[in-house]
Amino acid sequence: MEKQRIDRQFEFLLEADKEKFIERKTLKSDGKTFENDAEHAWHMVLMCLLLGEYSNEDIDMLKTISMIVIHDIVEIDAGDTYAYDSEAKKSQRERELKAAKRIFGLLPDDQCKKFKALWEEFEEGKTKEAKFAHAMDNIQPAMLNNSTDGKMWAKNKVSLKQILERNKNTSDGSVTLWDYAYNNFILPNVEKGRIEND
Amino acid sequence: MEKQRIDRQFEFLLEADKEKFIERKTLKSDGKTFENDAEHAWHMVLMCLLLGEYSNEDIDMLKTISMIVIHDIVEIDAGDTYAYDSEAKKSQRERELKAAKRIFGLLPDDQCKKFKALWEEFEEGKTKEAKFAHAMDNIQPAMLNNSTDGKMWAKNKVSLKQILERNKNTSDGSVTLWDYAYNNFILPNVEKGRIEND
Repeated sequence: MEKQRIDRQFEFLLEADKEKFIERKTLKSDGKTFENDAEHAWHMVLMCLLLGEYSNEDIDMLKTISMIVIHDIVEIDAGDTYAYDSEAKKSQRERELKAAKRIFGLLPDDQCKKFKALWEEFEEGKTKEAKFAHAMDNIQPAMLNNSTDGKMWAKNKVSLKQILERNKNTSDGSVTLWDYAYNNFILPNVEKGRIEND
Repeated sequence: MEKQRIDRQFEFLLEADKEKFIERKTLKSDGKTFENDAEHAWHMVLMCLLLGEYSNEDIDMLKTISMIVIHDIVEIDAGDTYAYDSEAKKSQRERELKAAKRIFGLLPDDQCKKFKALWEEFEEGKTKEAKFAHAMDNIQPAMLNNSTDGKMWAKNKVSLKQILERNKNTSDGSVTLWDYAYNNFILPNVEKGRIEND
């Protein structure tokens, strides 16, 4: 018997629970425990709601939030790829495409199509909503890393050059927020030697 | 010197990180680890986006999601009050009001007012958005509890009567979703003796 629409939706929603077990490389503000993807996405949604006023362009808030909520769901299969792990980054796209097909494929066709398109739009990073979502994705861990005295930056010997490379498009989402994050979260950690100044 | 608007926003956003340490009484789908408030809110946002079509009335999706994202933030100070702990429930309102004042008070005045009002609207549960948000708040843990073979229902000796009392307004948000949750998540656990049938 073919599954009902509502059964497929709940099947996806239960599968999504696994995102709570995907550990990131960012410590939470206690400086002891690692954040997971679900916590990270929740935090980004909250940031988006409060900081949307600093977007360079007017954004569709609901679309941006929808994008944020599901932006890491492929990591249920593909795992978290550390922003500064160049080896893992090589196979990331292929692993994530396969994951998107399986995971969004649990949903009814219309919602599968919609959410997969939102994920692709985020990945491409070209629309104003995707640009702002990426700014949130980069500024949220910078805020946390700064709150733990740059512990993970220091531990992973992250350099300013790497951070600037990763954030090369953050100001495309918001000049104001990138400026704030650079001056308040990044620069003080360069000055304290927590971020390598190469 | 008076704090800048953006400083207050980031102060609130860092404080909000503490929501990730507020443990709930619901097990995640692994049946071993407890969910926290941030994970729960993220899961509810995702549910809201996918299941909004079953709301009894047309809802403002962005408003509902905003409500969901912050609905438990007062628990940073007030703690999680277990749905079936009648003693703790007596002081809950007072504890949460005090928390709302302090936590939302970190925000710039306009955003403080807006978010506090959203939280109050959720608490009152009278608008169509609040009704649907409450349906998500009740159905999300029922889905997880069912996925772990009713482990926490059985451990806490929760009765069908208690569940029906807690869910007396769930169908005000969505008749369809309450019907689904009752038949797929609750009833099977009554039949298996995981929920006490008093």
